[in-house]
Amino acid sequence: MIDKEIRRPSRRYDYQTDGLAIYKESFGIIRAEAPLHELPESLRGVAVRVAHAAGDTEVVRELAAHPDVVEAARAALDAGGAILTDSEMLARGVTRRRLPARNEVLCTLRDPRVPELATEWGTTRSAAAVSLWRERLDGAVVAIGNAPTALFHLLELLADGAPRPAAIVGMPVGFVGSAESKSALAEHELPGGQVPWLVVRGRRGGSAMAAAALNALANPDELA
Amino acid sequence: MIDKEIRRPSRRYDYQTDGLAIYKESFGIIRAEAPLHELPESLRGVAVRVAHAAGDTEVVRELAAHPDVVEAARAALDAGGAILTDSEMLARGVTRRRLPARNEVLCTLRDPRVPELATEWGTTRSAAAVSLWRERLDGAVVAIGNAPTALFHLLELLADGAPRPAAIVGMPVGFVGSAESKSALAEHELPGGQVPWLVVRGRRGGSAMAAAALNALANPDELA
Repeated sequence: MIDKEIRRPSRRYDYQTDGLAIYKESFGIIRAEAPLHELPESLRGVAVRVAHAAGDTEVVRELAAHPDVVEAARAALDAGGAILTDSEMLARGVTRRRLPARNEVLCTLRDPRVPELATEWGTTRSAAAVSLWRERLDGAVVAIGNAPTALFHLLELLADGAPRPAAIVGMPVGFVGSAESKSALAEHELPGGQVPWLVVRGRRGGSAMAAAALNALANPDELA
Repeated sequence: MIDKEIRRPSRRYDYQTDGLAIYKESFGIIRAEAPLHELPESLRGVAVRVAHAAGDTEVVRELAAHPDVVEAARAALDAGGAILTDSEMLARGVTRRRLPARNEVLCTLRDPRVPELATEWGTTRSAAAVSLWRERLDGAVVAIGNAPTALFHLLELLADGAPRPAAIVGMPVGFVGSAESKSALAEHELPGGQVPWLVVRGRRGGSAMAAAALNALANPDELA
């Protein structure tokens, strides 16, 4: 029962209040404005959601991807694969109702072993936390939305023979190492071939864009 | 005790692994590149953090603020005021160790009353959730990082005489209503004068930028 004192305030501004209409109108604007034709068709749904999170259709120009990433990520999530993230904010941004198999969303940044590992290894906590994914990596979808060091560390683990995730969303943000870490992901080589990847090139990225990419990869239904 | 099987992977890339050095270098790049001279001095620390979260120094040009916002927000948080947010992601992005008084960080989006209120009022859940802030508004710092409807709804509540927060960070993102809601915040009028406000004009914004703004407002120490 709703407290009788909670009342809708008097309407003083003219704005759209229907959530579904807002989504539809937003995606319509993005499809009209964004240079989606430059992207392979499979990637356009992801691009729309990333632009939506960025509030900027130009970010679509910075998207780059391995040709299999959408199919690989979706199949992995359909099969129940975990989502592994480098930040709590990114984990929080994954829309649980879009996940096809109640997939686990795991961020190990607050694991109590992380500070000690980071100190011992002389690296960031974000990077050290990635080493705690090992048992979960096989068939997972990994998303890095904060720390370039986490992405570099992941690539080093894979080069050392760690289990292969199904796909890697590489969207760390920032001014030191971000662009470089995404280039390293796009160019990585492994004995079994590349792990399919998706990046926003350059300095931009972040938890919101990475979460948007995950939400699009998880479910092809734009308005789900 | 650390599991002996967890080892640092072999170093294969040349990247900065010292978190503090990464922060310092990042902020140095931002200070060198961003048009901070166009901003009042009190706002520059906030601008640096917002640019850092955006991975883009040009976003500084879209910042606008009431002249008292930094002082008002900091005083409110020092006095133990709550932080009220429209999204779980934004709440998650507030760095707790930067808060001066173990301030409460509250997002009411998942309150069980929200879906019913939203349906009854014909508005979004983000907007309805704002009505549940009422008892907490007095002296709080409000941050909107997702939904324009939440910001419009808040302004309507205030116009109806709701308790005044100490400051409003208005950074909803998107293509429908976002720019308009931020203009409405910048232009709002109340009998006691405006509530001090901070916005990123236009379509950009989002949880990451809003969290960065809160983290800067909470603590003037850049590297805290």
